[in-house]
Amino acid sequence: MKVILTGNDLTVDKVWDIAVKGAEVEISPEADATLEASRKLVYELVDADVPVYGFNTGVGWNKDHKIAKEFFEEFNRKLIYCHTFGVGAEASEAEVRAVMAVRLNCLLLGYTGVQPAVARRYAELLNAGVHPVVPEKGSVGEADLTQLAHIGLAMIGEGEVNYKGRRMSSAEAHKLAGLEPVVLGPKDGLAVVSSSSFSAGEAALVFKELAELADMGDIISSLSLEGLNGNTSPLEAEVMAARGLAGQAKCAENMRGYLEGSDIYEAYPGKPVQDPLCFRGAAYVNGSLRDALEYAEKYLFIQMNSTDDNPCLLLKEKRIISNSNFETTTLATAMEMLAIVLSHVSRMSCYRMLRLANPELTHLSRFLSHDGGESHCFGTIQKCFASLDTEIRHLSNPCSVDYLSLSGSIEDHANNTPLVVQHLRQIVQDLQYIYGIELIHACQAIELRKRQGGFTLGRGTAAAYDAFRRALPLYTNDRPLAPDVKKAYEFVKSAALVESVKR
Amino acid sequence: MKVILTGNDLTVDKVWDIAVKGAEVEISPEADATLEASRKLVYELVDADVPVYGFNTGVGWNKDHKIAKEFFEEFNRKLIYCHTFGVGAEASEAEVRAVMAVRLNCLLLGYTGVQPAVARRYAELLNAGVHPVVPEKGSVGEADLTQLAHIGLAMIGEGEVNYKGRRMSSAEAHKLAGLEPVVLGPKDGLAVVSSSSFSAGEAALVFKELAELADMGDIISSLSLEGLNGNTSPLEAEVMAARGLAGQAKCAENMRGYLEGSDIYEAYPGKPVQDPLCFRGAAYVNGSLRDALEYAEKYLFIQMNSTDDNPCLLLKEKRIISNSNFETTTLATAMEMLAIVLSHVSRMSCYRMLRLANPELTHLSRFLSHDGGESHCFGTIQKCFASLDTEIRHLSNPCSVDYLSLSGSIEDHANNTPLVVQHLRQIVQDLQYIYGIELIHACQAIELRKRQGGFTLGRGTAAAYDAFRRALPLYTNDRPLAPDVKKAYEFVKSAALVESVKR
Amino acid sequence: MKVILTGNDLTVDKVWDIAVKGAEVEISPEADATLEASRKLVYELVDADVPVYGFNTGVGWNKDHKIAKEFFEEFNRKLIYCHTFGVGAEASEAEVRAVMAVRLNCLLLGYTGVQPAVARRYAELLNAGVHPVVPEKGSVGEADLTQLAHIGLAMIGEGEVNYKGRRMSSAEAHKLAGLEPVVLGPKDGLAVVSSSSFSAGEAALVFKELAELADMGDIISSLSLEGLNGNTSPLEAEVMAARGLAGQAKCAENMRGYLEGSDIYEAYPGKPVQDPLCFRGAAYVNGSLRDALEYAEKYLFIQMNSTDDNPCLLLKEKRIISNSNFETTTLATAMEMLAIVLSHVSRMSCYRMLRLANPELTHLSRFLSHDGGESHCFGTIQKCFASLDTEIRHLSNPCSVDYLSLSGSIEDHANNTPLVVQHLRQIVQDLQYIYGIELIHACQAIELRKRQGGFTLGRGTAAAYDAFRRALPLYTNDRPLAPDVKKAYEFVKSAALVESVKR
Amino acid sequence: MKVILTGNDLTVDKVWDIAVKGAEVEISPEADATLEASRKLVYELVDADVPVYGFNTGVGWNKDHKIAKEFFEEFNRKLIYCHTFGVGAEASEAEVRAVMAVRLNCLLLGYTGVQPAVARRYAELLNAGVHPVVPEKGSVGEADLTQLAHIGLAMIGEGEVNYKGRRMSSAEAHKLAGLEPVVLGPKDGLAVVSSSSFSAGEAALVFKELAELADMGDIISSLSLEGLNGNTSPLEAEVMAARGLAGQAKCAENMRGYLEGSDIYEAYPGKPVQDPLCFRGAAYVNGSLRDALEYAEKYLFIQMNSTDDNPCLLLKEKRIISNSNFETTTLATAMEMLAIVLSHVSRMSCYRMLRLANPELTHLSRFLSHDGGESHCFGTIQKCFASLDTEIRHLSNPCSVDYLSLSGSIEDHANNTPLVVQHLRQIVQDLQYIYGIELIHACQAIELRKRQGGFTLGRGTAAAYDAFRRALPLYTNDRPLAPDVKKAYEFVKSAALVESVKR
Repeated sequence: MKVILTGNDLTVDKVWDIAVKGAEVEISPEADATLEASRKLVYELVDADVPVYGFNTGVGWNKDHKIAKEFFEEFNRKLIYCHTFGVGAEASEAEVRAVMAVRLNCLLLGYTGVQPAVARRYAELLNAGVHPVVPEKGSVGEADLTQLAHIGLAMIGEGEVNYKGRRMSSAEAHKLAGLEPVVLGPKDGLAVVSSSSFSAGEAALVFKELAELADMGDIISSLSLEGLNGNTSPLEAEVMAARGLAGQAKCAENMRGYLEGSDIYEAYPGKPVQDPLCFRGAAYVNGSLRDALEYAEKYLFIQMNSTDDNPCLLLKEKRIISNSNFETTTLATAMEMLAIVLSHVSRMSCYRMLRLANPELTHLSRFLSHDGGESHCFGTIQKCFASLDTEIRHLSNPCSVDYLSLSGSIEDHANNTPLVVQHLRQIVQDLQYIYGIELIHACQAIELRKRQGGFTLGRGTAAAYDAFRRALPLYTNDRPLAPDVKKAYEFVKSAALVESVKR
Repeated sequence: MKVILTGNDLTVDKVWDIAVKGAEVEISPEADATLEASRKLVYELVDADVPVYGFNTGVGWNKDHKIAKEFFEEFNRKLIYCHTFGVGAEASEAEVRAVMAVRLNCLLLGYTGVQPAVARRYAELLNAGVHPVVPEKGSVGEADLTQLAHIGLAMIGEGEVNYKGRRMSSAEAHKLAGLEPVVLGPKDGLAVVSSSSFSAGEAALVFKELAELADMGDIISSLSLEGLNGNTSPLEAEVMAARGLAGQAKCAENMRGYLEGSDIYEAYPGKPVQDPLCFRGAAYVNGSLRDALEYAEKYLFIQMNSTDDNPCLLLKEKRIISNSNFETTTLATAMEMLAIVLSHVSRMSCYRMLRLANPELTHLSRFLSHDGGESHCFGTIQKCFASLDTEIRHLSNPCSVDYLSLSGSIEDHANNTPLVVQHLRQIVQDLQYIYGIELIHACQAIELRKRQGGFTLGRGTAAAYDAFRRALPLYTNDRPLAPDVKKAYEFVKSAALVESVKR
Repeated sequence: MKVILTGNDLTVDKVWDIAVKGAEVEISPEADATLEASRKLVYELVDADVPVYGFNTGVGWNKDHKIAKEFFEEFNRKLIYCHTFGVGAEASEAEVRAVMAVRLNCLLLGYTGVQPAVARRYAELLNAGVHPVVPEKGSVGEADLTQLAHIGLAMIGEGEVNYKGRRMSSAEAHKLAGLEPVVLGPKDGLAVVSSSSFSAGEAALVFKELAELADMGDIISSLSLEGLNGNTSPLEAEVMAARGLAGQAKCAENMRGYLEGSDIYEAYPGKPVQDPLCFRGAAYVNGSLRDALEYAEKYLFIQMNSTDDNPCLLLKEKRIISNSNFETTTLATAMEMLAIVLSHVSRMSCYRMLRLANPELTHLSRFLSHDGGESHCFGTIQKCFASLDTEIRHLSNPCSVDYLSLSGSIEDHANNTPLVVQHLRQIVQDLQYIYGIELIHACQAIELRKRQGGFTLGRGTAAAYDAFRRALPLYTNDRPLAPDVKKAYEFVKSAALVESVKR
Repeated sequence: MKVILTGNDLTVDKVWDIAVKGAEVEISPEADATLEASRKLVYELVDADVPVYGFNTGVGWNKDHKIAKEFFEEFNRKLIYCHTFGVGAEASEAEVRAVMAVRLNCLLLGYTGVQPAVARRYAELLNAGVHPVVPEKGSVGEADLTQLAHIGLAMIGEGEVNYKGRRMSSAEAHKLAGLEPVVLGPKDGLAVVSSSSFSAGEAALVFKELAELADMGDIISSLSLEGLNGNTSPLEAEVMAARGLAGQAKCAENMRGYLEGSDIYEAYPGKPVQDPLCFRGAAYVNGSLRDALEYAEKYLFIQMNSTDDNPCLLLKEKRIISNSNFETTTLATAMEMLAIVLSHVSRMSCYRMLRLANPELTHLSRFLSHDGGESHCFGTIQKCFASLDTEIRHLSNPCSVDYLSLSGSIEDHANNTPLVVQHLRQIVQDLQYIYGIELIHACQAIELRKRQGGFTLGRGTAAAYDAFRRALPLYTNDRPLAPDVKKAYEFVKSAALVESVKR
């Protein structure tokens, strides 16, 4: 598997392929030519001796310092050094790959004037499987300087990397992989560190899983609706058309498709006119997730396919211009909105489980016990998903604006994009657990309902039910629940459910 | 001034005209015909005797109750009664007008089957200037039942209204205005209360001011940039094109327009390569406001021009369908994102003021004092805008998901849209104060700079400067600041600044 | 009624007497002597000519400015001027009285060296009923400079005041009251503004109501427990002793007292072993309120009876020392904890109402309707208390640390104490509404239970029930609920319930 | 090392000894006698056949189920099973030891009637070093049922444990350690799981580190004050006495002690009257930490030395009473307050670093560079501590009240104490990093100051300075900063600084 990078068409799916599936990357010929051309311009500008930020001047408060040509290598190396102060847990190897792919793609647009050899090195390291060790904390999100500096450190043969399953010094890995460390020239330091690719790379993987969760939400709430034997009227196309909201219309359409042929359409005496909102509004609130995701994805795509470098080198005009293109406030706040929407999605799922456990609504046994209520069954596990929901609620509190004014009051804005991404990533994981537990509930309810006298599932939900049952059997006696929860989580994380309903 | 309501083209500007400027409303003939047709369908369905939520059944947990025809009036009146439990401050008359206009517009789509006389009554009350008293608290945002019930109460001649500057009983106002209170029939109660028009109406007025604030942000930061004598390079079109973000590109374009011809383009020895981010990134962060506003406005427009009624009466299919179209989670969370973005916008403004007060950066006197630093001038007022910024930060904490499961666990989702709107409204007011104080700073800095030896403003900023100076003279001696702050706030609130730059 | 102020024994109750009940104040002779002695010291120090902050130097960043003797009046007047930039709603007259009483009391300790005539003027204005207009926003809580400056402005005969029910200029009120405005001397400006008395004064009134709410919580949950016919076992003294938590033990003791003699102690077949936690844990969570209140009150008392002035004049040592005694972080964060605890208290009350509305638990009619469930009764009002609970949850988000670094990076800490107090005040009001609505529920449930065949209340709850029924009759038919809610709120606010149970 | 457990004198220090230092535990003879007596009572009550929650009835919603004697073992085993649904990261072995020690200590009070062999097993496992695997998530804090169930699972020989550095099945570890798994009898299941010992045990370790951080705060801010060559006047005893706040008085006393003999007391021309608040108020805000910690520790001590079991067995009265003693709301909210206070403490530290990097204030080189500003030095690292401060701010958002109503609406309160503890734990770690970086700054500043012409440190700070310099040398050239940051963090975590100043 190979992904061609052009600078302007990197998608979340391609990043996933490179990062998770291990696809190789290749720089397109056009992009390579752009790299060469813009590097040439850099040298022309060096000769012209105009003061340009981070190029022949210092950075931050030190922007009043001048850098002479003979110190370019040292200056750029030290620029890397002084930014390698990452702390905390390390990004996964997949995440580091995603980050490198994004950084490389943006460099290909030719706005940095980076040495082509440096740009190509991202591709070489990716293809060789040399993955720098990158601690996750230390960036306030106006460019992810420190995380990218840790990658830069590895590129010059210092620091540590993961290589073929082993952690080792970058120098050793270079040797094993048959590579010489790069030597930095003018502007290379900034080109390596001055970007939000760390946030974007991690975000890309999170967005992939979010898109799957949006899809799975429709499947899971369809299963739960069958578990409840609830109403489908809120899913009707005409109702959606009258409202005009694209997200919820899509969800309802999906659910109608999954539920086609289900016994749920059967009327029976005493069937309630309206189900609890967690069922009735499932498509509606999952639709809000689609709405928000569409907005956020738009800005993530731009982030992965445009330059966020400062200064910005304009090839045609032969100029290099100071700017704030590293601002990622739209993306950061879009993700904070996503977090809030997910707190709704999570809570809807939790309430569906609480309702499925309630015989008054389901006419099934309490806590869906297989033995008519004798066993504890799913009474206690409510605390598990409730505690995860609480964590999601907490993670949905915004943090992007909680910054300090730094660098002698020059850097007096920030957006904390990496922390925002990491919060979102944790929310995704928590929701994967919650959805796993909802699947346990929904399928247990369906099974009890089948036992009561047969119950035909929809075409999609039948397939989904079978897929889940292959992963996890009916809960027929009190046993430690943790292994089941783990399996259900892994089933959700695998997105097998999404595959199951495809015909 | 008159606005024709059709059900599908009500804009924020039209709502502003009706609510604030007192425009009359008129129902379009097509819409009126739809009203009649759908009412007819209601009576057909009454005869068919199918159980339909809130129509010939009770509502909420009482949905299992059946309502006989002879009790329709009483049932619907009591439905209004039992929802009138609003508490807290009252919505302004302008807001009540906005709410009524939105509710009327959505009714015109014919999905409620409301009595045409009830629908028309909104128009009659608006045109007569009879404004029901509406307390602002009491809704969890799955339809703003209580606030709309207070309007319904006035429509049947009970409760209180504001009429021609006086508060009086609704009965008295009806008499004075020559109207008979309406008599409710089947489904009218739900048609009156089951909508999010209260949130949408209040939001429309807030969005109008937000759009103005977005525009003023470009003008004010242009003035501040001149006060600083800062750099314009981050505004260049090529830099914006390289990034591809529509919001910031628009802001930069505006600012370039305002600053055309300004002395700010002059180079001078020692001019810093880069300004503090609050200046350098002004267009970028204000651009995020534009991005978020575009998203939110899209959903507000849908909210004002589609049905959010449950149940939904389908005219063509002659059916009435239970649903969750009252879900406003996308809109609510979009506004929560807006609040977060505004916390960034506010902080940028505050930092610009802190920088303008600093001689090291401006080479003007400390705290911009007219007398070279002898007076206190704008040293202490920093606490004023800082405390407002703190309030904005607090208001930007989300609340949409903090709901309880109500009505016998049937209403187990909510989004607290009214509270979200009210938070946003307070943020807008606080930001209007902050921008007022920034104008005081920027224009003081410019005046000091002019005194230093002349300084030519840009074409737009010159006009803006003059407009502000007409409202508020230079601060030339320590005097109580509160009156100046108030004037500056009112100047911003009037949006006169937006007018000033139009040529 | 008169309160003698000594500087060291001002309690919340005394502040309430002065502020709300209109008690006069008198400075104790010892305190008056201290005032004279410390003023004498100020003049000695003026002669010695040592630079002392805000005295013969500027303030804030201007602390490097020197102030000559002949400019003392002007400097101090302008110091007042430049701090009068308050915005937003105005403090109530009662609150302004509380603030002035607290400021005066702290001045009496002799650490400011204020002119005795200035200190006495607080007493004179209080006793004459001249109440300066004080806008509530504009302080970041490292001293409430602006609010106190608005009082200072009135003291020198400028700005506005409320006097005998009328708003007028301070100059006019002085004339009417037969007072000459004060003339400021050295250090008087700072002595007037440099204090957190605004926060402390407003907090004192809030704490008074909080203490009443803590007491009412025990009464109301006792009534609700009777409404449920629930268990008293969690209130037993031995259970409390085994746990050792003072707050919950006190609540349980109160509840046992109120419930003495109640039919609730009767066992009956099918009586549940355990009630929902909102009943079972009522004393426990209200006990957490008592625990937190005890902590916060301790620091409020210190705040009202110690100096928070900077600089601090040491009478015995004849020195004046720069410090940070205006720090109120302990008090601010204690109040933020209180807000969080109150979010629990509020939610417990809400859940009790949801349970009381549920026939399954109560064996009473749904939504406690008087007619066996035909009317809507208290189904819809759940949205009212739920929305107030949501607001409380939002207000419980902390804000004390969200400050900016001001005054040339000299004032780089703040705690936003006034905003914290105002959030707490709003929470108190919301909880008064919620408790009012709980009283409606509890007494309705009790009445239905009485009808079922007689039900004897406890000795305390019987008195409480009667007191509430005098304020508000049984809800026997659907009618607009807002008036009932208002009456119930006012009943709670009056604290009549606390009186009712005293024997 | 051995700790005798009595049930009423377990301190944070003793827990630390058991958990971190590996001390053995021993049950006091009196406590053992109490265990036997209360178990005897249980059997008497079993014979009396009264329904008692979780004993001969089901738990939660299943409390209406009756449990016959012959099913006691199965019921209790399944009770353990159904609660083992923990997810997420695992508690460290030290934490598991802390949890077990606390659980055991509380059992010793005799309120549970647990089988003595089960109680003793905690001691045996602790002393043998058998540490059950305990996932950290899954509890809503009304008793930490799932975490404690994972321990219970290991006690009956199921699930996994860590033993002598290896993870293995509990069964295997039992064999290796020469133990037979316990067999559960009536009430044993609840006795094992129904407690908040997990939260309390984790909290105890966090509180130990917090107390050290409070002490280190005084040392580190003393060093920074010397780095600044700032004022000591705000630390004077008389100033503290005038204010009356115990926490800040203690901090100031400590700081005066550390700074005794320092050159910082030297006056010099141009020495500012007042330092920035982050220095001037250091003792004051750290004092707020002491105030809050005192409050929180009081309730943690009660938690570790009282019963939190439901039902509660009263030995003397021979009764077993249903209650809510598992409520930990006071402790949870006290910790949430601590988190808020720590957000202030963190920010103060960050601002001190920003000020130390500023030549204007320090008259040292920019960013404290060793070479007069040529190197980057500590310019970029500001983003590191700023991002950690942002995380702390986010973690200080409360979550205790964000719960769902569970178990058929019976468990409608929670406090999320485990999540609160885990947030606090992360804050502590982040602050350890921040303090480490402040030490780097302070000692660099001091060294530069020494170079400028000698600078004598105080008696305490000299020792502290030496201790730190042994761990980390002066930063004399740009090099990757991450290793230094790690060392400084570990130095802080070791609390060596606290030792260094003891004489």
